Amino acid sequence: MVRAQLLLHCPDKPGIIAQVTNFITVNKGNIVYLDQYVDHVENIFFMRIEWELDGFLIPKEKIEDYFQTLYAQKYDMSFRLYFTDYKPRMAVFVSKMSHCLYDLLARYTAGEWEVEIPLIVSNHEDLRHVAERFDIPFYCFPITKENKAEQEAKEMELLREKGVNFIVLARYMQVISEQMIESYPNRIINIHHSFLPAFVGAKPYHAAYARGVKIIGATSHYVTTELDAGPIIEQDVVRITHKDTVNDLISKGKDLEKIVLSRAVQKHIERKCLVYKNRTIIFS
Amino acid sequence: MVRAQLLLHCPDKPGIIAQVTNFITVNKGNIVYLDQYVDHVENIFFMRIEWELDGFLIPKEKIEDYFQTLYAQKYDMSFRLYFTDYKPRMAVFVSKMSHCLYDLLARYTAGEWEVEIPLIVSNHEDLRHVAERFDIPFYCFPITKENKAEQEAKEMELLREKGVNFIVLARYMQVISEQMIESYPNRIINIHHSFLPAFVGAKPYHAAYARGVKIIGATSHYVTTELDAGPIIEQDVVRITHKDTVNDLISKGKDLEKIVLSRAVQKHIERKCLVYKNRTIIFS
Amino acid sequence: MVRAQLLLHCPDKPGIIAQVTNFITVNKGNIVYLDQYVDHVENIFFMRIEWELDGFLIPKEKIEDYFQTLYAQKYDMSFRLYFTDYKPRMAVFVSKMSHCLYDLLARYTAGEWEVEIPLIVSNHEDLRHVAERFDIPFYCFPITKENKAEQEAKEMELLREKGVNFIVLARYMQVISEQMIESYPNRIINIHHSFLPAFVGAKPYHAAYARGVKIIGATSHYVTTELDAGPIIEQDVVRITHKDTVNDLISKGKDLEKIVLSRAVQKHIERKCLVYKNRTIIFS
Amino acid sequence: MVRAQLLLHCPDKPGIIAQVTNFITVNKGNIVYLDQYVDHVENIFFMRIEWELDGFLIPKEKIEDYFQTLYAQKYDMSFRLYFTDYKPRMAVFVSKMSHCLYDLLARYTAGEWEVEIPLIVSNHEDLRHVAERFDIPFYCFPITKENKAEQEAKEMELLREKGVNFIVLARYMQVISEQMIESYPNRIINIHHSFLPAFVGAKPYHAAYARGVKIIGATSHYVTTELDAGPIIEQDVVRITHKDTVNDLISKGKDLEKIVLSRAVQKHIERKCLVYKNRTIIFS
Repeated sequence: MVRAQLLLHCPDKPGIIAQVTNFITVNKGNIVYLDQYVDHVENIFFMRIEWELDGFLIPKEKIEDYFQTLYAQKYDMSFRLYFTDYKPRMAVFVSKMSHCLYDLLARYTAGEWEVEIPLIVSNHEDLRHVAERFDIPFYCFPITKENKAEQEAKEMELLREKGVNFIVLARYMQVISEQMIESYPNRIINIHHSFLPAFVGAKPYHAAYARGVKIIGATSHYVTTELDAGPIIEQDVVRITHKDTVNDLISKGKDLEKIVLSRAVQKHIERKCLVYKNRTIIFS
Repeated sequence: MVRAQLLLHCPDKPGIIAQVTNFITVNKGNIVYLDQYVDHVENIFFMRIEWELDGFLIPKEKIEDYFQTLYAQKYDMSFRLYFTDYKPRMAVFVSKMSHCLYDLLARYTAGEWEVEIPLIVSNHEDLRHVAERFDIPFYCFPITKENKAEQEAKEMELLREKGVNFIVLARYMQVISEQMIESYPNRIINIHHSFLPAFVGAKPYHAAYARGVKIIGATSHYVTTELDAGPIIEQDVVRITHKDTVNDLISKGKDLEKIVLSRAVQKHIERKCLVYKNRTIIFS
Repeated sequence: MVRAQLLLHCPDKPGIIAQVTNFITVNKGNIVYLDQYVDHVENIFFMRIEWELDGFLIPKEKIEDYFQTLYAQKYDMSFRLYFTDYKPRMAVFVSKMSHCLYDLLARYTAGEWEVEIPLIVSNHEDLRHVAERFDIPFYCFPITKENKAEQEAKEMELLREKGVNFIVLARYMQVISEQMIESYPNRIINIHHSFLPAFVGAKPYHAAYARGVKIIGATSHYVTTELDAGPIIEQDVVRITHKDTVNDLISKGKDLEKIVLSRAVQKHIERKCLVYKNRTIIFS
Repeated sequence: MVRAQLLLHCPDKPGIIAQVTNFITVNKGNIVYLDQYVDHVENIFFMRIEWELDGFLIPKEKIEDYFQTLYAQKYDMSFRLYFTDYKPRMAVFVSKMSHCLYDLLARYTAGEWEVEIPLIVSNHEDLRHVAERFDIPFYCFPITKENKAEQEAKEMELLREKGVNFIVLARYMQVISEQMIESYPNRIINIHHSFLPAFVGAKPYHAAYARGVKIIGATSHYVTTELDAGPIIEQDVVRITHKDTVNDLISKGKDLEKIVLSRAVQKHIERKCLVYKNRTIIFS
């Protein structure tokens, strides 16, 4: 049964929950999910609400318009409306390491996620064989300082052609240009191999070893134009000891990276992430 | 500013959230907290809602009556209503080990919790000095097979006299009688030193050692008449290795026990636990 | 450079470390790893020691004999000797769920482990396509009550033919017969989807949901003839809430299962597990 | 039974373990603990070894001299020798928050640690009542910019008088001067309320909230002259969500801080920490 999913935020005022739930209920929608949160610092109200469209009195294609007219204006709301019969299209960018890619493709192939993966993009040929194992088109755009702008332009064109909605950087070892980031605002998901904000930038495991930390982490975040500083979706950590070499950290970190990235991607696919002022609200 | 806290559950039907939030809003209550959950297996709706009483049109002492008449009957609701200007009264039962008691009293003395501790009860004299350090009356009821019923009767009388609302068993090494449990339904909080349901009963660390587990845990739960089988409020675990002796498990476990118990007590004090069919809903 | 790996245990006595390290050192072996542990309950000494064979005065093929004669007899030792130029051969048994299989094969294909996987065995056809994606021979032995003994006999013959050293049950949903277990003592690794000893047997996520636990776990252990009671190699847990349905537990549990199983397999491949009286010593 | 504890490090060479264990064994010492580690990056060998002195042929007061002569010179070793019949003396420095102090004193009073606490030092009067509850002398040295050097000089004199071996900063909100740090090299233990190196300096919970992290942490480290940059002894983390306010972080963080600090203090008391080039080796 198709469901509508509404994510919204607006200045907090009394009565919003009552109004929105009432709107759905009187129009014979059955609410199957509601999660809300008030940021009392910024005084902003956030909500995610989901209801079954079977028997809903407002036609699917008019819901957005009605909601805009009746509530969004009144409460100065930002909102996004989704339907569960639409599968978002996700591009995966990789370089040479396969662990995150395998984890994404294993879930995809097993049918765990409501998503399409129309292509894999890389700056190296190394993982073409993985894409081929899973019968997904693989495009290689080798990148040098000289050709970067040109190659990214080609990538962007390809993404448009393939109808890509969001991008997952599965240990893609290139900095994404501002232009691409702005074309996919809060729709490029990266995995960084440290518990941010510790160890921003290159070689975080080497830095973690040098600093002598007792835990290492991984962080999945939306990409913004400031390096490794975008809104954090998910983090996790694992305990290490003085016995762990840099290679041990890399090896233990791989398991973290793939699980943390996949959890973040899942939250995104389920439309459970909302970004506000560089922080994420992750609905339950 | 005084707030009302309403916890309720009832068979799930469309419109409940809208009705309840509307009831509060039209009567000029400012909702500052709402968390709800639908158990789709049992088809039960659960909600915790909190609003400021300043300016609320219904007098504090009549809210319960109004809510009962207007909504509880209609939706076949069970509900409990609390006010934040009332501090619940908590008795602590201990035996010989001090770590949980110290943790509770340190928080209490630092003013972290909205609670009163009018007494500490024990079956041994060992921890009287701790009670004295914190200036809390200490009552010792030595218990033998022969005098158990009699001593518990005296304890119950003392608890009534002191106006105790709920009991915390802080490593109290006696099984509580059915009669006492039934006098405090879902109001006796125990800490069991294993990740239940593993290692029910006596000497769980010895059992954990013998089984060769790689993690140990602690579980805080409401006491029911079936031993170590009541609704779980909070659990946590810590990693161990083959090098840990039984004494190491006991030592590492102590930290778990005290933190897990205190987290559970805090949730109870904040009225964020609701029990339904031997499972807890822990509101956010 | 080839290294020797020696795992041993014996009744604890003064001087064993000195003797064994001296034996290696005077024969010009360079010790690159030593981990030892004394079980003071059983009074047993355990050690894992690793040294480079380059320049070692005793020929590789005679080390076992020398060590047996000079030390094992004297100290009543059990020991196993391995060399790093030998890759063990591992069979993977699966049923219908792919997550653990993909995780094993992704690591294998990426060259993370010093192991060969000459075959995958299943009682169902469902995962043949996964085996084919990774170019690994797949053998299907459908099992019924009637043909179980016969099919297992064929499996055992196939394992012998393929020179299999150890077996990984990657969510293989059949109980292994005593005969097969005894042919591979402490060499069949299972993943059970609970934090054992809680929720032994079938449907542990359903049982965990019913019990209302706040954490779920996964346990990898060597298979013994008592169901889910073999020596534990690795466990891990993840936090859940009352909001998680049984399906959520299954989904969150999958990530645990695959990581816990792969960690256990890695420890086994690295010869870092030693079993003594149903407990594992996991060397660092 | 009194035991000797030897911690050492030196350039790695073949034969060191054999020589040292042999030295103890031939002199009739019974080794009850051995943990060693080789840093293959720096090529340094580290060892902690513990043996019973009962029947040991070398008199207790001459062991250091013998070991220096026979081995330390030969292998260019740094070593420290301790005996278990000596209790180190620990000063606790606090400001206004009591949670870490209570945790330390509860363990101390329960006899969990082989340590003496001859005094508590503070720059405020707030926690005098806690010291008094536990009958420990409390000294208040109010600190201003003007009197800082003078007050610290008085503190140092008091510490010398009381025979203090090491200092625990239990949320002491003053930067320690270089002079005091140099008087207690790797013997001042601090608790910082973040997972270092993230959020160095003041108000880390505010910074963590602003960055929108999904985990917060606490770090215990030896104090060096560079702020929050000393060798890390222990860290731990706890998961948070967007719902947690700065006050929630502070509250959840308190539990982390006290446990992490107490674990670090325990490792120090047990002489299981060795510092090398700003990293700690934490023996098992």
